[in-house]
Amino acid sequence: MKKINTAPLSGMQELLPDAQVNFNNLKNIIRDTYESHGFLSIETPMIDRTEILLAKAGGDTEKQIYKVFKTAENGENADQALRFDHTVPLARYVVEHENDLVFPFKVAQIGQNFRGERAQKGRFREFYQCDVDVVGRDNLPLFYDADVISTLLDTYKKFGLKTSVVARISNRKILSGLIEEFGLTVKADDIFSIIDHSEKVPTEKTEGAFDEIGLTTDQKNKMMDFININGSRDEAAEKLKLLGIKNECFSLGVKELIDVLRMLEADGYENSIKADMKIVRGLDYYTGTVFEFNFPEYSQVGSVGGGGRYENLAGFFTDQKLPGVGGSIGLSRLFYVLAENNLMKSQIEKPIDVAVVPITEGENDYAMKVAKGLREEGKKTTIIATDRKLGDKLKTASKIAKSAIVLGENEVATGNYQVKVFE
Amino acid sequence: MKKINTAPLSGMQELLPDAQVNFNNLKNIIRDTYESHGFLSIETPMIDRTEILLAKAGGDTEKQIYKVFKTAENGENADQALRFDHTVPLARYVVEHENDLVFPFKVAQIGQNFRGERAQKGRFREFYQCDVDVVGRDNLPLFYDADVISTLLDTYKKFGLKTSVVARISNRKILSGLIEEFGLTVKADDIFSIIDHSEKVPTEKTEGAFDEIGLTTDQKNKMMDFININGSRDEAAEKLKLLGIKNECFSLGVKELIDVLRMLEADGYENSIKADMKIVRGLDYYTGTVFEFNFPEYSQVGSVGGGGRYENLAGFFTDQKLPGVGGSIGLSRLFYVLAENNLMKSQIEKPIDVAVVPITEGENDYAMKVAKGLREEGKKTTIIATDRKLGDKLKTASKIAKSAIVLGENEVATGNYQVKVFE
Repeated sequence: MKKINTAPLSGMQELLPDAQVNFNNLKNIIRDTYESHGFLSIETPMIDRTEILLAKAGGDTEKQIYKVFKTAENGENADQALRFDHTVPLARYVVEHENDLVFPFKVAQIGQNFRGERAQKGRFREFYQCDVDVVGRDNLPLFYDADVISTLLDTYKKFGLKTSVVARISNRKILSGLIEEFGLTVKADDIFSIIDHSEKVPTEKTEGAFDEIGLTTDQKNKMMDFININGSRDEAAEKLKLLGIKNECFSLGVKELIDVLRMLEADGYENSIKADMKIVRGLDYYTGTVFEFNFPEYSQVGSVGGGGRYENLAGFFTDQKLPGVGGSIGLSRLFYVLAENNLMKSQIEKPIDVAVVPITEGENDYAMKVAKGLREEGKKTTIIATDRKLGDKLKTASKIAKSAIVLGENEVATGNYQVKVFE
Repeated sequence: MKKINTAPLSGMQELLPDAQVNFNNLKNIIRDTYESHGFLSIETPMIDRTEILLAKAGGDTEKQIYKVFKTAENGENADQALRFDHTVPLARYVVEHENDLVFPFKVAQIGQNFRGERAQKGRFREFYQCDVDVVGRDNLPLFYDADVISTLLDTYKKFGLKTSVVARISNRKILSGLIEEFGLTVKADDIFSIIDHSEKVPTEKTEGAFDEIGLTTDQKNKMMDFININGSRDEAAEKLKLLGIKNECFSLGVKELIDVLRMLEADGYENSIKADMKIVRGLDYYTGTVFEFNFPEYSQVGSVGGGGRYENLAGFFTDQKLPGVGGSIGLSRLFYVLAENNLMKSQIEKPIDVAVVPITEGENDYAMKVAKGLREEGKKTTIIATDRKLGDKLKTASKIAKSAIVLGENEVATGNYQVKVFE
């Protein structure tokens, strides 16, 4: 009988061993694919100075951050907190170790972050994020925007899902140019926010929101036309041209978008990408390319990853200009979504390959020898050496292992044994 | 120029990418070896209820624990902290999910724990611990004590170190029986503590400590004889017999120790194990087998891992008796020790296999194609697409990659290219 509440805290994703195998399998695919694309793995501490973590944050982040303190006196560095993303610690890392890094710095970070959000389905307070970033010094070619998107698309492909993934891509300069052209720069944040929410609300609500912030009917209509632009490279180029906008920022954004799409086509992803002007990526620090990954056949699921280009990674920490582009897969949420919708093509059902079952203690030594041989062949092998009846031991074996080898006096004497494969 | 202190907090192990590759390599070996021995990986949340984490702790742990709180109001579960080991969360996990687990539950946990100790060389406040445990229901055969030690020895072997590792093994019942026989049970904690420290202080100091707690000269001499007993199975059996102790607990402990040593010999580890009565493992909750791993040629390094048998994992959380045996490798400290003493046989020096270097932007598309082919062959491949001179790009490549492929107009036209291997 339990004496105490042993449930994990609300908002925590605690998995049973079978589910953990499949979670770790995804995590390994992510790490291997990121590294195969030349990203270098690093880890930053989970605890950092609040001053660093909140240098540029505000709003929700400040409310959601977990502060950390020791019961005993702490002295220096007393104001500490848990990291809430990988980007801020990366900025600190790059500035701290700048002289020891090779630029462009292609970097992968896989690990837990913490946000004390209101717990809800598929949203966790401790969650795995799997980031790739390319950080340049002074400048960074547009090629790396395609490099990041290509790496993430390759990762989704390697998951082996029952559904397809599409990268919806835009460029913030396009919308910024449009806003500038309309003379609405003072309302830029509102407009970004309205477009960012436009997918989650009915069309009338988006139009209403534009009315509310004072757009003219003509501006509103043009904005609605704009956010409905999506499609292939050619389609997007054509439709964007038809808007008839003569603005330098707008034109540069279109050029960058078209270039990124073209590079991804050359890389073999023509069927996994589309331009989509609804992609804004919140009020984040992005300044150019922005992208988001979706399952088109499961639109209710929403974003399963995303990222973008930022002009300056670490402006709060250094005068050195560090432009970058990065993307992230939220693994904890993705795992939840894949399980909910049964989207994994193949799940690992038994974590162990072989259970070696000595009938009595007398066969234990031989069992160790057999197990050692199987491990050398690369098989995950356990020995079930309880003092229970053979039937019970085999039942135990069948729950965790794909197959069993029963060892009795006879097997020890002859050195022969049979492998029983469980259905 | 930096605008802010960007150093990680003191006590944090933050690695550069090259070191991180080698750290991750060890971590992967640990995970793969644990799993190959049939241990199932799980992860518990890093944040848990303080009530759970401190259920049985006291002393230092309470002082070292990191409390966690949100800036905004937290409501329920307000008293939270970061886990300081894997054992307490495992106890909660096993009790919470008991009906969904298969017993004996062989479980592996690899991840960061947190203790706000005074920062010192090789001791970290955020540190990786890599645990294996076998948890039984009601009872658990001694076989699993050998199973855990064998798994850890196999792990050290797979590291490929320049020095050998020895498991020094004892059994707490032996010392407990001896103490009982001497009628010193009220002083048991003191005696355990004195023996636990005896390796770090001169012999006279240990003798003085025994005097101080009131042992007679005869008791002290016998105790000194006892703690100096070590050696092979036969040697230890012989010397323990010569003590002439007739005590049930003592005898049972000796029998268990000898059995564990015998099983490990049968498993091929005769040269990597010894009995050693100095092994106590602190004032921890161990009740039978205790063990510690050392590098005999680098004795100043101290313990590089250890563990033992506990009678009841979760007595604070449930009435169900859950005996277990577990061991742990402290990876952060081990990595530090291996680097300090240059003990890795081979280090990975370049994280990337191939850097593909297009001479101009015109070769980017072909570079992506070549890189894709190399990745399909399992090579970690990056593309260096900066707008710098070829010489600069090759210099960058040589810092991170084992080889480079330069692609110009000619290579694109002919489809032939040469691989330049860096020295």
